[in-house]
Amino acid sequence: MATALDRDFQTYRTERETAWIDELARWIAVPSVSADPARADDVRACCALVIERLRDLGFETAILETGGHPIAYGRHHAHPGAPTLLIYGHYDVQPADPEALWTTSPFALRVRDGKMYGRGSADDKGQVFMHLAALETHLRVRGRLPVNVTVVVEGEEEIGSPHFDQTLVRERERFAADVAVISDTAFHAAGIPSLTTSVRGLVSWEIAVHGPSGDLHSGYFGGTVANPIEALARLVAQMKDAHGHIVIPGFYEGVRELDRDQRAEIAALPFDAERMARDLGVPALHGEPEYTPLERMWYRPTLECNGIWGGYQGPGTKTIIPAFARAKLTARLVAGQDPHRVRDALIAFVRRMAPPGVRVEVESAGDVPAVATARDHPAVRAAARALEAAFGRAPVMIGTGGSIGPVASFARVFEIPQVLMGFGLPDDAIHAPDERFDLDQFRRGIDALAFFYDELART
Amino acid sequence: MATALDRDFQTYRTERETAWIDELARWIAVPSVSADPARADDVRACCALVIERLRDLGFETAILETGGHPIAYGRHHAHPGAPTLLIYGHYDVQPADPEALWTTSPFALRVRDGKMYGRGSADDKGQVFMHLAALETHLRVRGRLPVNVTVVVEGEEEIGSPHFDQTLVRERERFAADVAVISDTAFHAAGIPSLTTSVRGLVSWEIAVHGPSGDLHSGYFGGTVANPIEALARLVAQMKDAHGHIVIPGFYEGVRELDRDQRAEIAALPFDAERMARDLGVPALHGEPEYTPLERMWYRPTLECNGIWGGYQGPGTKTIIPAFARAKLTARLVAGQDPHRVRDALIAFVRRMAPPGVRVEVESAGDVPAVATARDHPAVRAAARALEAAFGRAPVMIGTGGSIGPVASFARVFEIPQVLMGFGLPDDAIHAPDERFDLDQFRRGIDALAFFYDELART
Repeated sequence: MATALDRDFQTYRTERETAWIDELARWIAVPSVSADPARADDVRACCALVIERLRDLGFETAILETGGHPIAYGRHHAHPGAPTLLIYGHYDVQPADPEALWTTSPFALRVRDGKMYGRGSADDKGQVFMHLAALETHLRVRGRLPVNVTVVVEGEEEIGSPHFDQTLVRERERFAADVAVISDTAFHAAGIPSLTTSVRGLVSWEIAVHGPSGDLHSGYFGGTVANPIEALARLVAQMKDAHGHIVIPGFYEGVRELDRDQRAEIAALPFDAERMARDLGVPALHGEPEYTPLERMWYRPTLECNGIWGGYQGPGTKTIIPAFARAKLTARLVAGQDPHRVRDALIAFVRRMAPPGVRVEVESAGDVPAVATARDHPAVRAAARALEAAFGRAPVMIGTGGSIGPVASFARVFEIPQVLMGFGLPDDAIHAPDERFDLDQFRRGIDALAFFYDELART
Repeated sequence: MATALDRDFQTYRTERETAWIDELARWIAVPSVSADPARADDVRACCALVIERLRDLGFETAILETGGHPIAYGRHHAHPGAPTLLIYGHYDVQPADPEALWTTSPFALRVRDGKMYGRGSADDKGQVFMHLAALETHLRVRGRLPVNVTVVVEGEEEIGSPHFDQTLVRERERFAADVAVISDTAFHAAGIPSLTTSVRGLVSWEIAVHGPSGDLHSGYFGGTVANPIEALARLVAQMKDAHGHIVIPGFYEGVRELDRDQRAEIAALPFDAERMARDLGVPALHGEPEYTPLERMWYRPTLECNGIWGGYQGPGTKTIIPAFARAKLTARLVAGQDPHRVRDALIAFVRRMAPPGVRVEVESAGDVPAVATARDHPAVRAAARALEAAFGRAPVMIGTGGSIGPVASFARVFEIPQVLMGFGLPDDAIHAPDERFDLDQFRRGIDALAFFYDELART
């Protein structure tokens, strides 16, 4: 059922667009990289920009300290009887390196070919900004919001939201709401509006392999000392078989197998594996052959080595046996898996498989369980109507391979319905060089959000 | 048979020591890192310092261009009937990184606890300098040299001497000699003078594994795209078995097995595996269990991964599937192996084992065959007498696990006897942080070299 959008809203949105993009550019300009301790001041400065914007809209605001990076909090509750919507997003971003692969500076928003380029343009500064633009539209055009609104924008999502859970418990009162909406996901494809109802979890590790106390001459000592790089390579290589199955005992424990209906729903979605491989620049897709790529991305756990380093990386040759080698790994979890058991399974595997002649350390930092969210709640149906009105087509239900720690926290602490209504596109290159956000998604998304607030008031 | 050293020589050496160390400090101060293109001017500047010193000694000199880094050439032929000795060494050095692990700056010679610290102090600036000091001693104390002397100090040894072979062919006349002496090796242990009669060869490779055209979000794409780090880890891990045997087909082709006499000679040398492990900071030595550590170091080929890198290496977590991963490898060869066949064996292995979903490139740069040098030539016996006179004990015959490209070139082009008479010690940390050279080895080594020239004149 398509419902008409508010023409006055669209007129206002068009008038304000340039100013909004300029304001979003100020957010992008602040390198709020939560993973980098050296950027802590930038993260805090970005929080202040969000607060500034909420104040402009007449929200009560607060900077909530978490023990890590702060949360920008805003509240506009004008209708005691109306439902309360909690809007969640994050203002922190992934590191921009390798910066050399960006066409333009990652921290300078640039519009090219109908897309806004910059770190955080899609994930998630741009999408947080859309909510604030939609709220502004309601307030300026009609002078009021249709529902009570609480805005929570955190600064630690990209590092696994280590303090969000405890802050949520501590600030129960301030965060109390009937529905949460999270715009940190993407459409299945351009032109296919989507609601996400399944989010993967995340566990991360770092493995250090220590060999000799200093780098050794590989001629003098080659053949007598275990090589830390080779020991690490062996550990990493032993974690999967050649088909991409993870062979760490206990890793798949609790994983729910897909049923026939789920597989049919996924199979009905448009998906072109060859085109995806071409777009990504790989010869072919790769992974557990008994599942389709979409099944693997959304409903199968994965393990990836995100970084490795050791020894000489400069020009030419340096004939050494290095003193150490290190690797970073993360796993994506699916519903049914216990993050702690997965964490411990890998640690036990690494300790058991550690080859002789070296000393192996493994540490884990942060874990987030997977979540399956509501599919047929009235708030989800309100979101579906809003998407259909703005994009001209009823949304599909999809999963996301990514992890959104706060979705797990909301599920655990509040048990409220969560609407995962994001406006990214699959080629936004989030977490990568040349991250971008489509301007048309930005425009129609603001329309959809403004309409969603109205529809929610009617539920 | 011990012969008395010349007391006047020792007196002169003592008087000159401070000035010599100051002069050597000037050599160390020039970061002549041949592997680093950015250091090319420094390499050339170091060549000029060697030339300056040869001119001071009254040698005819020339800077020989090679197409790469130049050779410092000096000639002092005063006795038409006497044998001609070619002294070979190198003024280039290994990179100093990781510089943070040096106690004092790698390019500032510092004397502590009877050792000279600095990159090149032992390998090989210090040992080249000893020859020039010994020649100076002859010239200043007696006014003449006992043999005709040609000095060849190159600037590309640490990168495999890529132009030395062809320069040797082109400059046949200038390089013509009866005997070559090379001081770029070490004693088996402090107090055990040694002559090296076996030198391992070297082949190097770099493997690049290309995945997606840019880094990908590991949540969105995890499970669908092959991970270049994991593909590289798998390739590296598959090159050896758990015991350190190289399982690349053809790698061991031509390797000569050790006979009973050789094994007995090696077994007679003092060697303490537990102490070596402790000194190197490893839990235990590691390698082919059917050979002793010394056999593995000198007479068995090895393969080492010298460096690996890919993906995110910064603080915290970055959830990506990286666009590429790279590794540097080198093999040490022994007599009987053909470097080209070894090179091709690894390349063929990598191509055959390359996993699906990624693109693998492998390149090889430079190769040097192993060499077994003369053990019973009169020049070798002259060297043995000189070592016994200076160090009070007859030398042992040992191998070296290192590679000295020019030894292979001299063997191929001139077929003259080569005396590998080096004065390093096993704990000099060459190619590593805190490289050092023992002052007592420096002093007695100069005595030994000065005496060697005399003994050579008597052969």
